[in-house]
Amino acid sequence: MNAVKPKILKGFRDLLPDEIIAREKVVSAIREVYESYGFVPLATPAIEYKEILLGYGEEASKQIYLFREPDGGEVGLKFDLTVPLSRVIAQYRDLPRPFKRYQIQPVWRYDKPDPGRFREFVQFDIDTVGTDSMAADAEIISAMHDCLVRLGLDFRIRYNSRKVLNSLAIFSGIDTGMSHALFRVIDKLEKQGLENIKLELGPGRKDSSGDTIPGLGLGDEQVSKIIDFLSMKQQSRDGTVRTLEKLFAGVDGTGEGIAELREINGFLDAMEISEERVVIDLSIARGLDYYTGPVFEAILTGKEVAGYGSVMGGGRYDNLIEKFAGEKVPATGASIGIDRLLSAMQKLGLVEARPSIADVLVTVMDRERLIDYQRIAHQLRSAGIKTELYMGKAKSIGKQLKYADRIGVPVAVIAGSEEFERGEVSIKDLRVIKETTVDIKDRKDYVEAKIGQKTVPVDRMVEEIESIISD
Amino acid sequence: MNAVKPKILKGFRDLLPDEIIAREKVVSAIREVYESYGFVPLATPAIEYKEILLGYGEEASKQIYLFREPDGGEVGLKFDLTVPLSRVIAQYRDLPRPFKRYQIQPVWRYDKPDPGRFREFVQFDIDTVGTDSMAADAEIISAMHDCLVRLGLDFRIRYNSRKVLNSLAIFSGIDTGMSHALFRVIDKLEKQGLENIKLELGPGRKDSSGDTIPGLGLGDEQVSKIIDFLSMKQQSRDGTVRTLEKLFAGVDGTGEGIAELREINGFLDAMEISEERVVIDLSIARGLDYYTGPVFEAILTGKEVAGYGSVMGGGRYDNLIEKFAGEKVPATGASIGIDRLLSAMQKLGLVEARPSIADVLVTVMDRERLIDYQRIAHQLRSAGIKTELYMGKAKSIGKQLKYADRIGVPVAVIAGSEEFERGEVSIKDLRVIKETTVDIKDRKDYVEAKIGQKTVPVDRMVEEIESIISD
Repeated sequence: MNAVKPKILKGFRDLLPDEIIAREKVVSAIREVYESYGFVPLATPAIEYKEILLGYGEEASKQIYLFREPDGGEVGLKFDLTVPLSRVIAQYRDLPRPFKRYQIQPVWRYDKPDPGRFREFVQFDIDTVGTDSMAADAEIISAMHDCLVRLGLDFRIRYNSRKVLNSLAIFSGIDTGMSHALFRVIDKLEKQGLENIKLELGPGRKDSSGDTIPGLGLGDEQVSKIIDFLSMKQQSRDGTVRTLEKLFAGVDGTGEGIAELREINGFLDAMEISEERVVIDLSIARGLDYYTGPVFEAILTGKEVAGYGSVMGGGRYDNLIEKFAGEKVPATGASIGIDRLLSAMQKLGLVEARPSIADVLVTVMDRERLIDYQRIAHQLRSAGIKTELYMGKAKSIGKQLKYADRIGVPVAVIAGSEEFERGEVSIKDLRVIKETTVDIKDRKDYVEAKIGQKTVPVDRMVEEIESIISD
Repeated sequence: MNAVKPKILKGFRDLLPDEIIAREKVVSAIREVYESYGFVPLATPAIEYKEILLGYGEEASKQIYLFREPDGGEVGLKFDLTVPLSRVIAQYRDLPRPFKRYQIQPVWRYDKPDPGRFREFVQFDIDTVGTDSMAADAEIISAMHDCLVRLGLDFRIRYNSRKVLNSLAIFSGIDTGMSHALFRVIDKLEKQGLENIKLELGPGRKDSSGDTIPGLGLGDEQVSKIIDFLSMKQQSRDGTVRTLEKLFAGVDGTGEGIAELREINGFLDAMEISEERVVIDLSIARGLDYYTGPVFEAILTGKEVAGYGSVMGGGRYDNLIEKFAGEKVPATGASIGIDRLLSAMQKLGLVEARPSIADVLVTVMDRERLIDYQRIAHQLRSAGIKTELYMGKAKSIGKQLKYADRIGVPVAVIAGSEEFERGEVSIKDLRVIKETTVDIKDRKDYVEAKIGQKTVPVDRMVEEIESIISD
């Protein structure tokens, strides 16, 4: 028989049960937090017209899977969730404003695949569209905070305002046309350190491999103003705002950015967001050119997960949706890096990876009585206990328990003719076996020795199992 | 400004919040049922190699979105979930067997788009792979039953075995090569009625538009045997098996199909599945040629949703996965028609369509105090109540309540300077307004008249709101 050789595209992956079960725990925790703030779900098609996908600029085309649909249209797979959101805002004019939506869908990018970097990945975006209130930005930051607390991670959220960075440009006498270049240098502070940044602002520098990184060519006084700004000691949120007020005092056009940060501070205080976890960091610029106001990102601070980079991030983009809607529509939002969060949590042992959802495996000692075993399984399911009836080929209970152990089911039910006659079942707490250091091939002895095993009347079965799995 | 014109491909759709919220309720109810039987989730990429997609035959290519990926490979969007499942089974040889998986993912088919028929739709498949035990088939039927009960629908599940239909072919002296044609005629019984079927088995007939439907050309005695079989009175599950035993008595090769049905009956009895809802129907064949054993389908029986056709269906396909795995891998499974189920439930008023998930809208009477309103919202969220802070442009409370009403939030919190000073808030039960017949433009009066409204101390706010939303 000519079998079709199973293979999968480079940069793509299957999510097997253990992976997707763990992932679903992370996603649903985050979804619940955003729903508690009143965000609602949206889903858009995988395929969009090419002209929609390139609505923000031709540059994206390099990474888009473009093709011609059978009807003849030039189309492609969506590469982000912001373009479809903009299309939706433009297309359905009667959506409530503000429109607070979350969207959890795959996107496709023809990037160089790396370990941990895929060409198809699920993006989780949250955005509030149609309000310029800083309350919206503060809510997104606050919900980011709540998500990370709920996931049990150590983290820091850092925020800033592009307007404050614009003020820095004014304050340092830097041309508006150069400000994005300035922001990109500033954004490297954490990775490169202050000395390298100083060189990149001025004459340029050589990197570790000897390559030249051109500098912005700023004068000494300009560089020193920027470095002073970036060296500002970490202070309380309000402390930073007061320092900025002093620094920029008397400089025209610097009031708005400071006011944004002050407003956000007020909302964060009202929502009891800790100063230790959520701080202003004036070096945060975020890469994308389209941000217009507050920008924010979350990093993990645990030692084992240092170097994971930003796990959530975003900002306000008041001029972007206009390209679709034809009118100014202010918006702010964030993307959540589900893959990074999940692998950090796996590294920290915060998510259990087991390829099963069931709590109980009903083993089959006597195949002639399969119906009786299915009846037991049915009783357990009716009591709300997730139950799998063993349907594999193994006849020995030892091998069936090995299967239970492998898929991570915590409880096995065992019954043979004797038990059936007496109206009893044996319940085996498999976590007890797991805790012993006995090799798996000896497990059969453990079954026979009935370790972690207890025989109870059938009408006490549910109660006994509940007491084990609720532990 | 040159705005990009928002448009979407023919046969594709956006799922706006009200639609996706309703859909998620249906999907999660079904998922919970299948998880209670020990099924685990799987996800596979949207894009597969063309040779994988055509692994079961070239015929599928007409409906597949095929294209060339930038790396040069011939690829396409997946059009079902059975092909990827087969690939996964062949690719990961160490998956537990049986592998009981559910998969909820979009698929793409270049079909003629119709109202209610889309080129991108979410498929919900459940399959048990690697066992030939009828316990697996019975579980899929039983879980179908549990899903429909949980969704509150009136339904009937009908099952049969392809082997019994093969027995009918033997019994009627019909050539094996003709049996699929026979099954396709039998499958039309419900739609066409016994008389038309009789003609299609024999000389053929003309349909209502005068077109000729060719017949199978069977002899009178053959036709009469088949008609007798199809006219068998609806009986209890075991009754049907006994009748079949009598009918096929002494005919070689007819035992296996009957044995399958008998086994399934035993399991269904053990799982206390009602005889009224789940019956043997000997005319069920299911369209696909690849079924080899039990076949089953669920239809809705409510008067308002007659004509919705089958909402869940499937069967056993023991020879299909072999094309990928190179070895025989028995499997059985079903597909759930989420779109049909959802639209039936909407028609029956069983799912509430509201474009919001929040339970409370905190209105803003005094914009200078936005921080105080955000504090109230935070208190409610901390108590587990989903809460949206009003961030729209409307200043009047009347208009804000109109917004609350529109997005379907059941409770509004109202507070002005007076309330803040006294440490109180007003809580408005918006369902009371909904129940009045007052036109929406007069609602402002209702606010002023404080209908459904109650003023309580802030520390009783959570308790009051909980008592309203738990109603």
